[in-house]
Amino acid sequence: MGMATIEEIVSRIASLDEGAMMAAQERQASLTKPAGSLGRLEELGVWMAGVTGQAMPMLRHKLIITGAADHGVAVQGVSAYPREVTAQMVGNFLRGGAAVNVLARHAGARVVVVDAGVAAALPPNDGLVTRKMAFGTQDLSRGPAMTRLQAEACLHAGTEVLESEVERGADVVGIGDMGIGNTTAASAIVAVITGQSPTAVTGYGTGIDEEGRRRKIACIERALATNQPDPKDPVDVLAKVGGFEIGLLAGVILGAAAARRPVVLDGFITAAAALIACGCAPNARRYLLASHRSQEPGHQAALDHLELAPLLDLGMRLGEGTGAALGIFILEAAVRCMTEMATFAEAGVSQKARR
Amino acid sequence: MGMATIEEIVSRIASLDEGAMMAAQERQASLTKPAGSLGRLEELGVWMAGVTGQAMPMLRHKLIITGAADHGVAVQGVSAYPREVTAQMVGNFLRGGAAVNVLARHAGARVVVVDAGVAAALPPNDGLVTRKMAFGTQDLSRGPAMTRLQAEACLHAGTEVLESEVERGADVVGIGDMGIGNTTAASAIVAVITGQSPTAVTGYGTGIDEEGRRRKIACIERALATNQPDPKDPVDVLAKVGGFEIGLLAGVILGAAAARRPVVLDGFITAAAALIACGCAPNARRYLLASHRSQEPGHQAALDHLELAPLLDLGMRLGEGTGAALGIFILEAAVRCMTEMATFAEAGVSQKARR
Repeated sequence: MGMATIEEIVSRIASLDEGAMMAAQERQASLTKPAGSLGRLEELGVWMAGVTGQAMPMLRHKLIITGAADHGVAVQGVSAYPREVTAQMVGNFLRGGAAVNVLARHAGARVVVVDAGVAAALPPNDGLVTRKMAFGTQDLSRGPAMTRLQAEACLHAGTEVLESEVERGADVVGIGDMGIGNTTAASAIVAVITGQSPTAVTGYGTGIDEEGRRRKIACIERALATNQPDPKDPVDVLAKVGGFEIGLLAGVILGAAAARRPVVLDGFITAAAALIACGCAPNARRYLLASHRSQEPGHQAALDHLELAPLLDLGMRLGEGTGAALGIFILEAAVRCMTEMATFAEAGVSQKARR
Repeated sequence: MGMATIEEIVSRIASLDEGAMMAAQERQASLTKPAGSLGRLEELGVWMAGVTGQAMPMLRHKLIITGAADHGVAVQGVSAYPREVTAQMVGNFLRGGAAVNVLARHAGARVVVVDAGVAAALPPNDGLVTRKMAFGTQDLSRGPAMTRLQAEACLHAGTEVLESEVERGADVVGIGDMGIGNTTAASAIVAVITGQSPTAVTGYGTGIDEEGRRRKIACIERALATNQPDPKDPVDVLAKVGGFEIGLLAGVILGAAAARRPVVLDGFITAAAALIACGCAPNARRYLLASHRSQEPGHQAALDHLELAPLLDLGMRLGEGTGAALGIFILEAAVRCMTEMATFAEAGVSQKARR
C-alpha cells in the first residue's frame, strides 16, 4: 500500500455494489415508516450500501481532511485577506478554534490538516500531516501554477494520506480546504473543465468587492490564455491553473473511491478537486456526496458537471470542511435509520392497507 | 406554574431580545471566518440569542415532544394505514425503534411521547405522558372534531407538558406528531387559515393513491361546509377541523414561546399546529424554526403564512419529529459555532485587508 501509482489507484475504482444496494432497498421497505417517507435519507442509506458493499454499513470513524496551501496568484489582489492568513488559520485548526473544528466535533469527526504547500514553515503537530510540495504555487496568471511532476505528486500524496487513514479505520472522509487565493484557482479549473466562461464561474470568495471580482476574472482569463490547459487532461489542468491543496484533495477522492469509502464534499474548492479526480477516473463520481450548495456561482456549474445534488443550501461559503461536517452528520443519520430502525414485523405494526 | 390560563400564557410571550441579538451579531463579526460566510448558521446563532435573551446561549438539554392522537375522520378511508397503527407506533416510539428515536439519539435529544387522544388504552411508560382528551376525535367531515372545551383543554395540556419539561431543563423543543388521518385535519386547518382551497393544500399523506386523495379533498370540503370554522378564531378552527395532538402541540408552542425556548417544527402537521398557536399569539412565530420542507403540498402554504423558511429540503414526509431532530442538530451547530469558535484576536489571525 502507499506505493501504488495513480494509474493503479484509478484501476481499482469499481462500480457501486448493486447486490448490496438491492438488499438495502429491501430493508428500507421493511422498516416502520411509509415507503419513501424519509426521502433522501433512504437514498443515502442505499448509496452507502453500494459504496461499501455492505447491506448494513457502519459509519463509526468519521474524518475530515482539510488540505491547506498557498497560491502565487494571491499577489494579484484576488482575495479579501492577506496571504499569511493561510498559515494562521492552520494554527487555528490545530488549536481547535476554527469553524471546521467546532462542526467536526459536533458531528463526531476528527480533523486532519494536510500542509500541501503553505508558504511558511509550520511547526510539527499531531494533527498536521506534512506533504509540502513547495512554499505556495507560482502565479497562475503568468505561467503554470506548478509543474506536471508536482501535480502528479500532490495527487499521489492525497492517495497516500487517505490510505493511511483507511488503515486507521476511517469509514467516511469529508474534505475541506484552506488557501488564500484558492477560489481563483478553483474558478479557473471549473471554467476549463465545464467549458463555462470565467465570468460565469467566478464569485466574491471570502468577500472581495465588485472591482476585486473583475480583477479576479481578468486574472483567470490571462491564466487560460497564457497556459492553454487541456480540458481532456485533468493533470494538465491541475498543473497549469490548480493548487497544491486542490490536487491533494483530488488524490484523497481517488484513494477513497478505490478503498470503497464515501467522500463528502464541502463547497466550491472541493468540487474543483472532484472535477480533477473524476477527470482521472469517471467512476470516482459514484463515491461522492455533495454536502451543500455554496454561495460561489461556479459551484453549481461544477455540481451539474458532476451530476451531484447537494444536501444542504444554507448560504455557506466558508470552506475548511464546514459543509462536509454537516453532510457527514446527515449521512450518518441516514445510515443509522437504515440499520437501527425496527421493521414492521419486529415492532408489530400493521402494514399499509390494501384497497 | 402550570395553572396559568391560555390568555396568561399568551400575555407572557414577548418580542425577541434585541440587545442580546446585537451582542451576538458583534461576536459573529469577531470570529475567525469571513463575515457572513456561515450563512444561515450565523443567523440562527443570533436568533437563538434573541429567543433566549443571552448573547452566548447554551443548548444542552434537547427534547422532542411527539404528540399522538387518533382521528374520527380515519373511517372515511383518508389514510393508507389502518387506524390501529397510531397506538402501535406509540409502542414503537417507547421501545426506541422508530425513525424519530434513531434521529433523536443521533442529535442527542430525548423523546417524550404525549398521548393526547389515542383510541386505545396505552400501558403506563416512563417515556409516555398521558393527556388523553378522548379515544380519538369525532369525524370532522360530519361535525366538529371536538368541543371547544376540549380544544382549550389540549392547548392547556400542551403548555403544561412544556412547562414541566422546562422545569427539567429543556433548552430547545422539537415537536412531532403521530396520528393516522392527521394530514386530513392539518390540510383542513391550513385551508381555513391560509384561505387556500382544499385541493391546493391536500397531498398523499402516508401514501394514498390519486383516488384516495380525491376522497380526502371531498372530506375536507364537507368538513368546511358543515362546520364553518371561523378563520379569525384559531380555537374554533382547532375544535371543528383539528386534532388532539395538533392542539397539544400548539399549546407546546405557546408555552415554549412564553418560556423563551426555541421550538423546532417538524413538517406539515406541526406547521398546522403553529398556525393555531400563532393565531392565538402572533408573537409566537418569532420562536419558531422550520426544520424542513415536507413533500405535503400544504406545507409550503403554511410556511409562507408563518413567514418561515425551512432549513432542509430532503424530500421527507414522515412526521414523528424526524425533521425536527435534524433541525435541532443544525441549530446546535449554529450555537456552537457562535460560542466555541476563536476570535481573530484570540487566534492571532489577520483581519480582512482594506484596499
